[in-house]
Amino acid sequence: MKSVVITSKDSPISIADFPPPIHGSGEVLISMQASALNHRDVWIGKGMYAKIQYPVIPGSDGSGIVIASQSKHAPVGTRVIINPNINWGENPEIQSSNYSILGMPSQGTMAELISVPADRVHPIPDHLTFEQAAALPLAGLTAYRAVFTKGKIGSGHNVLITGIGGGVALMALQFALASGATVYCTSGKQEKLDKAIALGASGGALYNQEDWSKQLQVLVPSGFDCIIDSAGGSQWNELTGLIKVGGRLVFYGATNGNVPSLSLQRLFWKQITICGSTMGNDAEFEMMLHFCKHHGIIPVIDSIFTLNDAASAFEHMDSGQQFGKIVLHHGQSNS
Amino acid sequence: MKSVVITSKDSPISIADFPPPIHGSGEVLISMQASALNHRDVWIGKGMYAKIQYPVIPGSDGSGIVIASQSKHAPVGTRVIINPNINWGENPEIQSSNYSILGMPSQGTMAELISVPADRVHPIPDHLTFEQAAALPLAGLTAYRAVFTKGKIGSGHNVLITGIGGGVALMALQFALASGATVYCTSGKQEKLDKAIALGASGGALYNQEDWSKQLQVLVPSGFDCIIDSAGGSQWNELTGLIKVGGRLVFYGATNGNVPSLSLQRLFWKQITICGSTMGNDAEFEMMLHFCKHHGIIPVIDSIFTLNDAASAFEHMDSGQQFGKIVLHHGQSNS
Repeated sequence: MKSVVITSKDSPISIADFPPPIHGSGEVLISMQASALNHRDVWIGKGMYAKIQYPVIPGSDGSGIVIASQSKHAPVGTRVIINPNINWGENPEIQSSNYSILGMPSQGTMAELISVPADRVHPIPDHLTFEQAAALPLAGLTAYRAVFTKGKIGSGHNVLITGIGGGVALMALQFALASGATVYCTSGKQEKLDKAIALGASGGALYNQEDWSKQLQVLVPSGFDCIIDSAGGSQWNELTGLIKVGGRLVFYGATNGNVPSLSLQRLFWKQITICGSTMGNDAEFEMMLHFCKHHGIIPVIDSIFTLNDAASAFEHMDSGQQFGKIVLHHGQSNS
Repeated sequence: MKSVVITSKDSPISIADFPPPIHGSGEVLISMQASALNHRDVWIGKGMYAKIQYPVIPGSDGSGIVIASQSKHAPVGTRVIINPNINWGENPEIQSSNYSILGMPSQGTMAELISVPADRVHPIPDHLTFEQAAALPLAGLTAYRAVFTKGKIGSGHNVLITGIGGGVALMALQFALASGATVYCTSGKQEKLDKAIALGASGGALYNQEDWSKQLQVLVPSGFDCIIDSAGGSQWNELTGLIKVGGRLVFYGATNGNVPSLSLQRLFWKQITICGSTMGNDAEFEMMLHFCKHHGIIPVIDSIFTLNDAASAFEHMDSGQQFGKIVLHHGQSNS
C-alpha cells in the first residue's frame, strides 16, 4: 500500500509501497481518507523524539471508512475517526508507563490502510468532512484536557491563549469560546491575531512588541483566570504576572525552552496553579467528540496537501507559518 | 498594657506600655496567655514586608482566656485560640483584595490583651496547653491547605517535605503522617532529620550533600506523589525530577529565591501540577482544629521565651536553628 515513510532522521519524507497491515482479531481495517500533521511527526522526522524506531509510517491523526470489521459499533462502511491513544491505562489522570501515541512505534495514519483495535474508532460527527475530522484527534484531545480538565475554563472566564495559529491553540480557542469564556491571544503576526479575532477572540497582543504584557493588562485589568501556553521560555514571568489571584497557567509544550529565573514570590501569594498537561484519556477523547458535535465545532484547516505531496506538508509544518491544521488528502483522484 | 512593639525597621524589638485595645461591639476581649513567632514577624521587624505600618504590636498566633464577651459561643472564661485571618472573603479558594493577617496593620497577639471579632476565636482543643495552642494557628492553617486542599495528600502516598524544622513544614509532616502518608524530609542538619524520623518520618536526605536527590530516588524509586516546599531556588529541577507522573509540588514560600532555569519538558509530559499556596480560609482553619483534635496532634515547640524576652525569641527565629515553633509565655510569673 502507498504510505508516507520516514526511514532515518537524515532521509527526506518519502512515499513508499509498504506491505498492508495485518488485520488482527478485534480490529477494524480502515481505508484512510485523510490524515493530519502534528509537530510530533516533524520531530520524529528529525530524530528529535524519545525512543524513535525507523522505518515508520507517521501520523497520529486520521479518518477513513471501515472496510473490514467484526465490531457492532463500527461495521463496514462507517465513517470513522481514530483515537490516537494506545494503552492510556486505568488511571484517568495520567498515562500508564506503556502508553504511546499512534504513529511510532506503531504504524501511523499516513497510509492507504490502517488496522486498529475496534475501541479506537468513533463515528465521525455528521457535520465534519473526512479532512475536518482528520484535523481533530490529537489537537482536540490535548486542547480538551488543557482547557477543561486542567484549566477548568468556563462561562465568564477571561482566558489568554499564547501563540495562536497552532492546532492545539486554535482548538483551545474554539473550546474556550464555546464554553462561554472571553478569550485573548498572543501571536508573532498581526495577521494571525486578526484571524483569531474573526473566530471570536476579543483581542490580543503581538509578543514581539516590548510592551505586549502591558497591552494585555490594559485589555484585562482584573487578570486572566487561565492562560494556555505551549511556549515556556522567558515570557513566563510576564504571563504569571497577568494571572489573577487563584488563576491557572496550563502548558502542554515548551517550544521556547526553559524558564530563565522563574519568580516564585507572587505565585504562592496569588495562589496560582501551574499545570503540565499532555494528550488526554479515552473518556476525554469521547467528551471532546461530543463537545464538537454539540457546539458544531469545525477544526480550522490551514491547508490540504495530497498524500503524494507529504514532504511539502512537513516542510510547511516546520515553517511555523500555518494557521490551523495541515491535512493530507488520501483520495484516489490525487494519488 | 505590656506589649512587644516594633517602632521601625532600624529599632530593636522592644517591650513597651501600650494603651489597651478598645473592646468593640461584637468582639471578645482576651487575656493573652501565649503567643508564637512566625517568619512574618521577623520580616516585619526588618521592614521586609508589604505595606508596613509602624509602630506595630506583632504576632499572628495566640491563645488566651476570654475576659469580656457578649458571644454565646465564646463566653467569659473560655480558653480560646485565635484565627489569624482578617477578611478572607467570600471565595473559599482565594483571599479577598482586603485580606490581611492578624498582627500588622491590626494589633497582634504579643500583648497582655487583644480584642477580636467573636467569630475569630475557637475553644482550644482539650489536649493542648496555652503554649501548644499558640503554636498552631498560622503554621497549622498554612500546612492544612498545602497538604490537603492543594497537595491532596492521603493514605498510601509518598510525600517529601523540604527544610524540616520550620513551623509549617513540621505541621505538614504531622498532618501527612496522620492522614496515612509515608513521609520523607530534607534538611541541612542530620540532627533535624533524626528528630523528624523520631516524629514518624521514614527517612530523608541532607540537601547540602551533592547527591541528595539521588539518595531520595533510591529511597522512593516510584517517585513522590507530592512535595511540600518553601525554599524554591536552584533545587526545583531536582525536586520536580523526583515527582511521579501526575504528582504535585506545593509551595508556600521561596526562601532560596527564584528558580534559575526551570526545566519544563518533563513537567508537561509527566502531567505535574505546581501549586502556590498561602494561608487558608476560615473553613480550613476549623477543619484544621478538628483534625488536630481528632488525631491528638500537638505542635512541635522548639523553645518558650517570656514576653519580656521577645527580642531573644526574634533573634532565635532569625537564626534558623529552631526545630518547631518559638513560643512566648505571657504568664504573670514571668512578667
